[in-house]
Amino acid sequence: MAPIAIAPFQTTSELTHSGIKHTITKTAPSIITNGNSTIINELDASKLVFTRNLSPRAVPEPDSPEVWTQSVCTDHMLTCQWTSTSGWGVPHLQPYGPLQLMPTASVLHYATECFEGLKLYRGHDLKLRLFRPNCNTRRMLNSATRIALPAFDPDELQNLIEALVAVEGEKWLPKSRPGTFLYLRPTMIATAAALGVQKPKEALLYIIACCFPSFDTPSGTAGPGGETVQQSSKARPGLKLLASKEDTVRAWPGGFGYAKVGANYGPSLIAQGEAKARGFDQVLWLLGKNCEVTEAGASNFFVVWRTSGGKLQLVTAPLDDKVILDGVTRRSVLQLARERLGGDLEIVERKYTMSDVEVAAAEGRLLEAFAAGTAFFIAPVHSIHFRGEDLEIPMSEGSTGKYTAILKTYLMNIMYGREKDHQWSVVVDEKQLDA
Amino acid sequence: MAPIAIAPFQTTSELTHSGIKHTITKTAPSIITNGNSTIINELDASKLVFTRNLSPRAVPEPDSPEVWTQSVCTDHMLTCQWTSTSGWGVPHLQPYGPLQLMPTASVLHYATECFEGLKLYRGHDLKLRLFRPNCNTRRMLNSATRIALPAFDPDELQNLIEALVAVEGEKWLPKSRPGTFLYLRPTMIATAAALGVQKPKEALLYIIACCFPSFDTPSGTAGPGGETVQQSSKARPGLKLLASKEDTVRAWPGGFGYAKVGANYGPSLIAQGEAKARGFDQVLWLLGKNCEVTEAGASNFFVVWRTSGGKLQLVTAPLDDKVILDGVTRRSVLQLARERLGGDLEIVERKYTMSDVEVAAAEGRLLEAFAAGTAFFIAPVHSIHFRGEDLEIPMSEGSTGKYTAILKTYLMNIMYGREKDHQWSVVVDEKQLDA
Repeated sequence: MAPIAIAPFQTTSELTHSGIKHTITKTAPSIITNGNSTIINELDASKLVFTRNLSPRAVPEPDSPEVWTQSVCTDHMLTCQWTSTSGWGVPHLQPYGPLQLMPTASVLHYATECFEGLKLYRGHDLKLRLFRPNCNTRRMLNSATRIALPAFDPDELQNLIEALVAVEGEKWLPKSRPGTFLYLRPTMIATAAALGVQKPKEALLYIIACCFPSFDTPSGTAGPGGETVQQSSKARPGLKLLASKEDTVRAWPGGFGYAKVGANYGPSLIAQGEAKARGFDQVLWLLGKNCEVTEAGASNFFVVWRTSGGKLQLVTAPLDDKVILDGVTRRSVLQLARERLGGDLEIVERKYTMSDVEVAAAEGRLLEAFAAGTAFFIAPVHSIHFRGEDLEIPMSEGSTGKYTAILKTYLMNIMYGREKDHQWSVVVDEKQLDA
Repeated sequence: MAPIAIAPFQTTSELTHSGIKHTITKTAPSIITNGNSTIINELDASKLVFTRNLSPRAVPEPDSPEVWTQSVCTDHMLTCQWTSTSGWGVPHLQPYGPLQLMPTASVLHYATECFEGLKLYRGHDLKLRLFRPNCNTRRMLNSATRIALPAFDPDELQNLIEALVAVEGEKWLPKSRPGTFLYLRPTMIATAAALGVQKPKEALLYIIACCFPSFDTPSGTAGPGGETVQQSSKARPGLKLLASKEDTVRAWPGGFGYAKVGANYGPSLIAQGEAKARGFDQVLWLLGKNCEVTEAGASNFFVVWRTSGGKLQLVTAPLDDKVILDGVTRRSVLQLARERLGGDLEIVERKYTMSDVEVAAAEGRLLEAFAAGTAFFIAPVHSIHFRGEDLEIPMSEGSTGKYTAILKTYLMNIMYGREKDHQWSVVVDEKQLDA
């Protein structure tokens, strides 16, 4: 049985609602004819059908306890079904509500699931923006195909994301609240109701928009994907990391650490829970006998240090082994640093170990460290607990390091429109729904 | 929102139906009082409530195309909800049907899910039996806690399994069909509707019973968990395995390969699909630069060889690194071989490599190989494709090896009651539902 989304609210259908950019503009499916004349429809945002939620909910106050639950979604969600025999169905923009899945559905047994996380920003110029959504949609294509879910045109996924936020922006990120954001979660799950461990024959793509708190404010921090990490009570701001032990390894060469698949998250929760119980904010994931530094929580991890030869470097682990997520924030930090800080800093993607970090710290060459991810954003790190000792990281600016702060400001200026017309900004054309 | 199971059939509630062993026998929860006087209910099968399915479906013919879909479940399923604040709720034996999950449910994003696979057998003596269900329930406890899902008393889970099969056995495994089985799938998923990457706060345990074909007959084979592998057209019976490449690793030390969590299955589907497309039945999963042999598909893997010193050995990979599933069939094969074949065979759990297998084959010392798992059962292997070459494995008995056949017969005799009163057999007390 394919899942059907059913609305918990009182609704009626309003096809091709006038306020939506992507209404039904073609009825004939786009057809790919292979040698066997099979007709497989591609993902096509232009076929979108809109069913308006006639019982919308109230928008919670920013940073309210309700928002901290990370469970309040907007009035609508985007869904699109896929089958191996007919391809992608008609995308529906419809009232937010529960999904129906048979108990045999593949996703509930075999983790045939992947997702993305990106944000919708209400700029200080009152415009609505996405930040490099093409990076998310292309990464989602990589994740989907790694977990045997169907491929799609990433630009069509971006069109669907834009269709959702175009109707939600005005209400859920009101112009009275510049500098706020919504968290967007494109998700794909395998839905076919059969217990065989096999390539999914049915799938559901859906996109939801969720109210999230600002994790990079003093009240808390979070891992990408939205892990809530209330900052532990301590004098100093910044994250306290607990280095992972050899018996707990997040990802492995030849595995799937680079993909945003569910299988990278659930298995990390025990180690994360232990870290929190011991008063740490996140796990710093190490790999191998020489303790290569990989990620912090589910964020990418950066250090700023001076080499023994005196060079100032911004360092993060490389993507080569496919152990590390190709983070959009990571990629943006690297590119901005190369473009704008290249005179000060050498930008280096290399394998490095806890021993390298320890020696740099001991010799006074370790200057900054930060985690970087979408939900987490740029979060300064003030200490790493490794083999029974706390390795302290200086914070030259009090609550952050100098370059950590500069890079965060660069990004915020692009996201919230203080830096005009940056090529990474996608301004969303807002749609007004009739009252 | 906690998930609710809704029935697709026309139903009415019949609490404490007279035909069920476990009806409501206590109303007061079992209470664990910790230092904070929190009341947390334990999983308790004695609280079971039964809602009968009044629109039952027809039982498909054994080995019919419908059965091969692995999607036909019996009339009822067992569900039990858990929350972090109140523990386990009242177990419900209720009509089989879809689950409702919010789009933000943890299981759909973070693979917070685990399962078990075991079978219910209709014996040649017409009795209904489970095979070592205590092994499955204890392993499920290990899997659940590895993926941050709640703990439970495994004996209570067994009671719930028995409650389900006690009502389904008579109809779904009729006495007119001795030698048949149903596949049972206890499952646990994290259901809390919140996007934070955090330890699950709500979960659903459910148990379903599914009609499965006999994969160990000539018509096909399957991986544990039910992977359908129609045998490729070829002259020789037995599985053709494709050795994995270094860039595709199923499990790793410090990971979770030992646990029956969803995260071990979805990521393997691409390699499995490639193997099938190339005409192989399954992937033989290797680990590390020296190509240690670990599992076949998602089954355990055994070889019978003669050492260069002349000793006859039954060899399988060890559990030490937690890379390999502690299979119930694996464990049973090892124990039966030790008890009954110890005079002929040395039983060895050790790391061994493809090089060891190749040398044994080249010197004529490799005698048999087989995959062992619940759905797969005991499946002889006739070749392994490794680094461009087919390594052929003799089949002394034509379609199987001598010890492979003996061990399979031992197991079948216990499962189907030809071997009377074996300690691994749990005879189920069948309940008759009123017409």
